Amino acid sequence: MKYYGYFRSSAAYRLRIAFGLKGLAPDFIPVHLTRDGGQQKAAAYRDVNPQALVPALITDDGDVLTQSPAILEWLDETHPEPPLLPADPIDRAHVRALAQVICCDIHPLQNLRVLQYLRKEYAQDQAGVEAWCRIWLGEGLSACEALVARGGTHRFCFGDTPGLADVCLVPQLFSADRFGVDLSAMPRLRAIRAECETLPAFAAAHPSRQPDTEA
Amino acid sequence: MKYYGYFRSSAAYRLRIAFGLKGLAPDFIPVHLTRDGGQQKAAAYRDVNPQALVPALITDDGDVLTQSPAILEWLDETHPEPPLLPADPIDRAHVRALAQVICCDIHPLQNLRVLQYLRKEYAQDQAGVEAWCRIWLGEGLSACEALVARGGTHRFCFGDTPGLADVCLVPQLFSADRFGVDLSAMPRLRAIRAECETLPAFAAAHPSRQPDTEA
Repeated sequence: MKYYGYFRSSAAYRLRIAFGLKGLAPDFIPVHLTRDGGQQKAAAYRDVNPQALVPALITDDGDVLTQSPAILEWLDETHPEPPLLPADPIDRAHVRALAQVICCDIHPLQNLRVLQYLRKEYAQDQAGVEAWCRIWLGEGLSACEALVARGGTHRFCFGDTPGLADVCLVPQLFSADRFGVDLSAMPRLRAIRAECETLPAFAAAHPSRQPDTEA
Repeated sequence: MKYYGYFRSSAAYRLRIAFGLKGLAPDFIPVHLTRDGGQQKAAAYRDVNPQALVPALITDDGDVLTQSPAILEWLDETHPEPPLLPADPIDRAHVRALAQVICCDIHPLQNLRVLQYLRKEYAQDQAGVEAWCRIWLGEGLSACEALVARGGTHRFCFGDTPGLADVCLVPQLFSADRFGVDLSAMPRLRAIRAECETLPAFAAAHPSRQPDTEA
C-alpha cells in the first residue's frame, strides 16, 4: 500500500492518524502543493486523482482510491481493528456527521485552490484570506462543540476510544491554530485534542514530523 | 420518521431520492432558507441542527441526525433494500469517493451562507456569484466524469442499479443547470442523469414537485 500526501494537507493528516491507529505503515509519496506550480496539477498526478487533490491511496492490488473520508471507511472495512466507527447505526451516524461537518463544511472552503481564487479574483491579501478561513472554521467548529456536547462527556468525541470524528477533528484544529481561530468557547474540543495528543498515532502524524515537513 | 428540508437544497434533494428508492415516506417539515432572515438560523432549528443547515432527520426513536451523507449511510444500514452501496469494499470506496467529490468539494462552496458572504464582503453581484459557482461545479463535475469513466460503462455511476453516487449526482446537476455550467464534455454524467430521470424515486424528488416549491 502507498499513498500520496503533503505534510500540511489536513486530509492527508487524517489518513496518517488512521494508519497509525491501525498499525499500518504504507509507503509515502510526497506531492508538493506549491512547488512547480503545484505538483498535484501535473498530468502524472491527475492520472491518479482527476481532482488534482491529495491524498490518494494505491492498494496492494493496485486499486486507486481518492477522497479521504472514502479511504478512511475503506481502511475501517478492510482493517477493522481497532474500529474507527461504533457498531450501532445511530452512533455511527453521529460520528460520521461530525466528521462531515469538518470534511464537507469546513475543510473544502480553505482548500488551497479556493484561497488562490480569493487572492486572484477578489484581490484578497493574507489578512483577507485568513478572515475568510476564520469564518468557516469558527462556525463549523462551534457546531462540532455543540454536537460533541450533545453526545455526553467522553475522553474522545463520541466515546473513550479514538475514532473517525477524532481523526478528522485534530487536523482541523491544527488549521484553526494556523489561522488564529479563537477556541476559548470550545472546551470539549480542546480537551479531546489534548487526549488525542497523548497517543502515538496522533503525535506521529503531526505535520511537523513528516518526511516532507518544511519550516 | 420526519425530516427538515427545503425544496431547492441539493442536500435535502439527495435524501428525498433515497427515501423514494427505499420506499419510505417520512413526514416533511419545511425550513425556508431565505424567509424570516433564514428560518434555518432560528433558535428552534439550531436546537435541531447546530450548523443551521438543512436537512436534518428525526428517527422514530427521536434521535436527531444531521449531515446528509451520514443520514444516507444510516438509511442504508437500517433499511438495506435496495442497497445504496455495493458489497465489496473497493467498490464502496469508489461510490463514496464520487459522492464526496460532490458533498465535500462542490456543494459546500455554493451553499447559501457562502454566496451571501461573497455578496457582502467581496461586493459580488449575481454574475460574480454565478461565476464562482461555475468554477467549482465545472472542476468537480469534470472529475466526476473521469472517475465514472474509470469504472467502466454502466447505466448508473457504478453499476446497473442506482446508488449513493447517483443520489448525490442528480441534485448537483440540477444546480449545474441553474448556474449555467457547460456539461457538453460530460456525456457519461448526462447519460446517467437521463437514466435516473426515468425512475419514479428521482422524478418525485425533483425540486419542482415539492410541497414547498416556489416559482
